Amino acid sequence: MRAEVISVGTELLLGQIVDTNAAYLSSLLPQFGIDLHYRVTVGDNEARLADALRTALARADIVFTIGGLGPTADDLTKETVAAVVGDELVLHEESAKRLRAFFAARGIEMPEANLKQAMIPKRGRVLANPLGTAPGAAFETGDKVVIVLPGPPREFVAMVDSEVAPYLRELVGEGAEVIRSRILRIAGLGESSVAEMVGDLLEGSNPTVAPLAAAGEVHLRITAKAASPAQADAMIDEMDARISAILGNAIFGRDDESLEKVVVEKLIERRLTLATAESCTGGLIGNRITDISGSSKTYLVGFVTYSNQAKKEILGVDEQLLDKHGAVSREVARAMAEGARAVSGADIAISVTGIAGPTGGTAAKPVGLVYMALAAADGTIAFEHRFSGSRMDIKLRASQAALNMLRLHLL
Amino acid sequence: MRAEVISVGTELLLGQIVDTNAAYLSSLLPQFGIDLHYRVTVGDNEARLADALRTALARADIVFTIGGLGPTADDLTKETVAAVVGDELVLHEESAKRLRAFFAARGIEMPEANLKQAMIPKRGRVLANPLGTAPGAAFETGDKVVIVLPGPPREFVAMVDSEVAPYLRELVGEGAEVIRSRILRIAGLGESSVAEMVGDLLEGSNPTVAPLAAAGEVHLRITAKAASPAQADAMIDEMDARISAILGNAIFGRDDESLEKVVVEKLIERRLTLATAESCTGGLIGNRITDISGSSKTYLVGFVTYSNQAKKEILGVDEQLLDKHGAVSREVARAMAEGARAVSGADIAISVTGIAGPTGGTAAKPVGLVYMALAAADGTIAFEHRFSGSRMDIKLRASQAALNMLRLHLL
Repeated sequence: MRAEVISVGTELLLGQIVDTNAAYLSSLLPQFGIDLHYRVTVGDNEARLADALRTALARADIVFTIGGLGPTADDLTKETVAAVVGDELVLHEESAKRLRAFFAARGIEMPEANLKQAMIPKRGRVLANPLGTAPGAAFETGDKVVIVLPGPPREFVAMVDSEVAPYLRELVGEGAEVIRSRILRIAGLGESSVAEMVGDLLEGSNPTVAPLAAAGEVHLRITAKAASPAQADAMIDEMDARISAILGNAIFGRDDESLEKVVVEKLIERRLTLATAESCTGGLIGNRITDISGSSKTYLVGFVTYSNQAKKEILGVDEQLLDKHGAVSREVARAMAEGARAVSGADIAISVTGIAGPTGGTAAKPVGLVYMALAAADGTIAFEHRFSGSRMDIKLRASQAALNMLRLHLL
Repeated sequence: MRAEVISVGTELLLGQIVDTNAAYLSSLLPQFGIDLHYRVTVGDNEARLADALRTALARADIVFTIGGLGPTADDLTKETVAAVVGDELVLHEESAKRLRAFFAARGIEMPEANLKQAMIPKRGRVLANPLGTAPGAAFETGDKVVIVLPGPPREFVAMVDSEVAPYLRELVGEGAEVIRSRILRIAGLGESSVAEMVGDLLEGSNPTVAPLAAAGEVHLRITAKAASPAQADAMIDEMDARISAILGNAIFGRDDESLEKVVVEKLIERRLTLATAESCTGGLIGNRITDISGSSKTYLVGFVTYSNQAKKEILGVDEQLLDKHGAVSREVARAMAEGARAVSGADIAISVTGIAGPTGGTAAKPVGLVYMALAAADGTIAFEHRFSGSRMDIKLRASQAALNMLRLHLL
């Protein structure tokens, strides 16, 4: 079965809002084995919406529209769909009652124009809106279905979950083909290295494996099509095992497992405490660690020693080291990690010092040069990195490399 | 002049990423008087991309494609555009040189497949990619233009700003009707308070004023349509002055002036040094401050005192205060700020302590309760806030309130 999604709203075409609804709906469809080949966005314009609807109905079995169910003259999705599929709109008494009650509860008289929100197709069904006044609807016409959904994301998501998902299950029937996917998350390797290492596996057709660049990491998406979710998962598991055999512990997590999540869980599991000493990352590592609920079980303290004086006075970095090697050096990174560990009493301390730019670089120490170190009971290790990009990119990549250094140490 | 945007990528149709690029590009076009009537999304599929291109070329003067410029076999945008418009691709020596240098700098041999990234149209021009290896390109064919842009958002935004905007200015010529807009950024007031305060001004038609909710702040967008940029700017200036008279110093900045940028600039201008002591925000405030280039001139040190022990040992918070009032209290916030100021020798220190959740709340001290303080030569001030939302929302809102507290102190 094939679907098409039409997002409706001039504010989308002006770039005033980002279309998270279309992405949410898109992510749901593969679970029902429904293919999505096109998504289209049009403004609040009847002719262009009608044109998009006709095109979509010619190439898809199910057409979704998102937006344009409000009470104003701009909101013309249901009217346009009715005209295109040759249906008419009738008043849905229950929705009208809900609308009147909504206004009564707020002590406001309902403008008559709002009643249009309670109009539904003659041939089709209502999709209840638990969080708003505009119900959705399915126009059922011959062998095609047009599902109209509200634009406000909160209402949209609730209606998709509670009304659309069961309806789609009904439409596709049991035993329909499903598509499932899994993301493998990789740190410490670039996209082209990963692509080269997994090589031929990128050429397969079911499951497919596709590399995606993400901020500071690389993602490989495995997608399998099968008769059941369990069968698809088994195919994904097998491909996951083959890729894992190649990439080893460069794979740090799957799906929504972030590097900070993996690191915090591992620290808690091993009952180890952590301190951080950051210079160029400026608190980003601490921020990422404390994004994880439960991080207070392992994270004792972070030092953002931005000035040399702070490195000396708070972490006890030797002035001579700073003079001889400069603040951005392997030696100072080591001293920062060791100092943070001593001051905090943590089991492990990690440090980062570098040049985030855009100014402050020299020929010998260019923007993007970053040193990092990890101090633990069994000694200190240190690394040099060269990152590219903007100030924020360099901060992000440095934080990623530091968290990855910690992860590899914990393995 | 009319444009159409085609986003390319199976990951978009699977809902694995949200298309922020299309929104960013959409928001730029009105400034050049370019109308956008349709946006289309297709997967990494040659036939459907070609179909979308032909449809777009039939109804628009300028077609943008986003994505599919990577080195893998999946990435087929340039090849497909060349086939549809009847052009061919040739090697761009300079881009090839940049590619080789990119790999050489990392000590990796360049896979030959990557050279396809340096292919450009015979009739058209290259759009440089300052942040990545894949240049963009404009195919110039008869009276139509197809502009192909990379998918990674960071590279995309940089290329749109530095290459596409000047090119569009050239294409539309001087004298076209322009739409310009300005964002007023507001802290310390909610969206409905702002809407109520500016009242009637939201009803105007040129310029229009529209409230937009942004993370932790409120934005008012003023949009004016005029014959020239200067005329539009004058209309915006006038409306800006009217709104400023109402909202006063709740407006902290305009367009891309973030709260951290305003605060860092003000600190540098006043030659004041800063220290931070963070508990529930976990380094986010330090991270935001150090996102600003030049912050090393004012920011000496940050303490992420996540544990009570760190609050005592590093900031010198009195154990009795912690026992009597708890770590999340006005008293401890004050002691943290005063301690950070004393330890660091900074002119000003700010502190935050609270419950970011989702666990750890009690009836007396619920999730979202946050205390913050500011210590300076003339004394210490402290505030209580109650924020709602997820752990990340509460961290962000607390950091926003703390930076705003600092900003208001500096006025």
